[in-house]
Amino acid sequence: MRIMLEDVVDLARGAAFLGAGGGGDPYIGRLMLERAIETHGPIELCAIDAIADDGLVATAAMLGAPSVMIEKLPNGEEAERALRAVERAVGKPACAILPAEIGGLNALLPIVLAAKLGLPVIDADGMGRAFPELQMVTFNVFGNPASPAALADETGNCVLIEASDNLAAERFARTTSVTMGAVAQICSYPMLGANAKLCVVRGTLTLALQIGRAIRQAREAHISPVDALLDHLRTTDYYQHCKVLFDGKVADLRRETSRGFTIGSVTISDSDGGQLVVQFQNENLAARRNGRTVAIVPDLIAILDRETAEPITTETLKYGQRVKVVGASVPPVMRLPQSLAVFGPRCFGFDEDFQPIESLS
Amino acid sequence: MRIMLEDVVDLARGAAFLGAGGGGDPYIGRLMLERAIETHGPIELCAIDAIADDGLVATAAMLGAPSVMIEKLPNGEEAERALRAVERAVGKPACAILPAEIGGLNALLPIVLAAKLGLPVIDADGMGRAFPELQMVTFNVFGNPASPAALADETGNCVLIEASDNLAAERFARTTSVTMGAVAQICSYPMLGANAKLCVVRGTLTLALQIGRAIRQAREAHISPVDALLDHLRTTDYYQHCKVLFDGKVADLRRETSRGFTIGSVTISDSDGGQLVVQFQNENLAARRNGRTVAIVPDLIAILDRETAEPITTETLKYGQRVKVVGASVPPVMRLPQSLAVFGPRCFGFDEDFQPIESLS
Repeated sequence: MRIMLEDVVDLARGAAFLGAGGGGDPYIGRLMLERAIETHGPIELCAIDAIADDGLVATAAMLGAPSVMIEKLPNGEEAERALRAVERAVGKPACAILPAEIGGLNALLPIVLAAKLGLPVIDADGMGRAFPELQMVTFNVFGNPASPAALADETGNCVLIEASDNLAAERFARTTSVTMGAVAQICSYPMLGANAKLCVVRGTLTLALQIGRAIRQAREAHISPVDALLDHLRTTDYYQHCKVLFDGKVADLRRETSRGFTIGSVTISDSDGGQLVVQFQNENLAARRNGRTVAIVPDLIAILDRETAEPITTETLKYGQRVKVVGASVPPVMRLPQSLAVFGPRCFGFDEDFQPIESLS
Repeated sequence: MRIMLEDVVDLARGAAFLGAGGGGDPYIGRLMLERAIETHGPIELCAIDAIADDGLVATAAMLGAPSVMIEKLPNGEEAERALRAVERAVGKPACAILPAEIGGLNALLPIVLAAKLGLPVIDADGMGRAFPELQMVTFNVFGNPASPAALADETGNCVLIEASDNLAAERFARTTSVTMGAVAQICSYPMLGANAKLCVVRGTLTLALQIGRAIRQAREAHISPVDALLDHLRTTDYYQHCKVLFDGKVADLRRETSRGFTIGSVTISDSDGGQLVVQFQNENLAARRNGRTVAIVPDLIAILDRETAEPITTETLKYGQRVKVVGASVPPVMRLPQSLAVFGPRCFGFDEDFQPIESLS
């Protein structure tokens, strides 16, 4: 499986859907990836099983507030600088780049870095979606340390974190990214291939590309892109439980950049007086229809343009947008009790347990 | 010159005076140093000129809010951990430990670390007093980078900073220390001996010991310790311009732990209706008598117990204390225009220029 120049728009769109509102606006990542492919040629995806057990893999991602990222662009050197700092701390060069999350920009940045360095990029990630905090990955659920982790910014600063646990790593990474201007590039979770094989969510770059492609092909065929998206998701192992949660218009939006995140809620109304409220912290976390929960983390909640199914990220939501809100299941590993202990509803301050979308009406 | 067990109390007292209210309560440092000497024997001070030009020296200090330090004690491993991180980043082991500041606790911690590691401690520092921020040292005035710098806390976290400039290093160190609980151990300004020789303030550990000793001897001889202190300071090259700025009682105290510092002001009143207001940010920064500036940074402002001349740090100030406030000049290098650009009054937000204490009445 290779990523060609003509795949980039589809991949970015699919990643934006899987980002569940977060992961950063993929437009910037799209431009960076197009440039990388123009310079270095098509990019080969690598299966996790092709990585040697003693090979070092490391993640590359943007950490911070997506609302800042769209104004404060990376200079293109940060990701490599962060990776090199981690490699020095581990004492071993990376043999492949692993996406930390498949959402938005963060699905594309690892490919850009891999292309630049001539390394393979692994067709997998740590969640099959996007999440706002460093410890919210399967890598952590399966006991891998986030440290050594390094953050770099566009002015040449680099901070290497060796934390006593992954929650501490998140705290240091967060305050560092805030000091870097609320967004930074991070390299974290350096893992041996043998460990990565036990915990990655497989095939998610391919899935993102296929999702984006399904939406585009429906548009070209003049059939409903949202219906085509749902039809396609139902063929996947991960996202097969999916539905339209609501159809309406953005009627209210509360959004602030706070604690290094894009935080808020959006209210969507329909013409029958129905309301759906979606709360977000970078990513959409919970959808409540007339007060009743209809989808909740870690399940996916995506807000799409009603006509084109183009995903709308939390930082680009606007009053008056006509949208359909789609919910979908996540990969089974994400719903295990030990996973829900790390990124279930209570980890975001909700006083309720996870309920799978297929059990909610 | 050796530091014996019986010198520790004098050294701690002298360092507290030179700390100008900051540098951390020396009581904790005193206990740590007494234990180090009991374990490792008397500690030889080393002149900076005895360091090889290509030898690496590095500083050791507490960074953060002294008001927190007195409750959140170090576990004794942090300083070495921070040093080792810096050594790894530089690629060279340190041949000696250099005090960053001679104030309070921070005069004693480098000796504790040196004793533990069997390294010499240099009889010098970067200011001949204490200052609250990382860039406020002669090392910076003379163009040495603070990076790589490392912070470590008592729970095993370690953060290595490679900053694009020293103001950025301060920002990252500050937010990291806040995340570590508002106080942390830092190793910074790794310098070659050749560079350190150009910028250190020489002989300040010896000076601190002599100041503390002069106060004790006056007490033992039943003469005024404050008068004896001033007499002694007048014999030094650095602190020769000195005087009692005010004699009174602590009548008001505003103090908070904010932005990672101990910040506030203290009002001291006398029986004639006179008032002296001292503003502080960890250290005492400006003293104004009935509204007129009588001493201002970088000159020293020390608040002493009226009878014993025991220095009172900003975090141990209390309503009702009977005090004498002493002002003193700083080493000439601290008053150069390039130094005042880094730690003169305007660097602390005061809208006035530095005036030497000897020109203020």
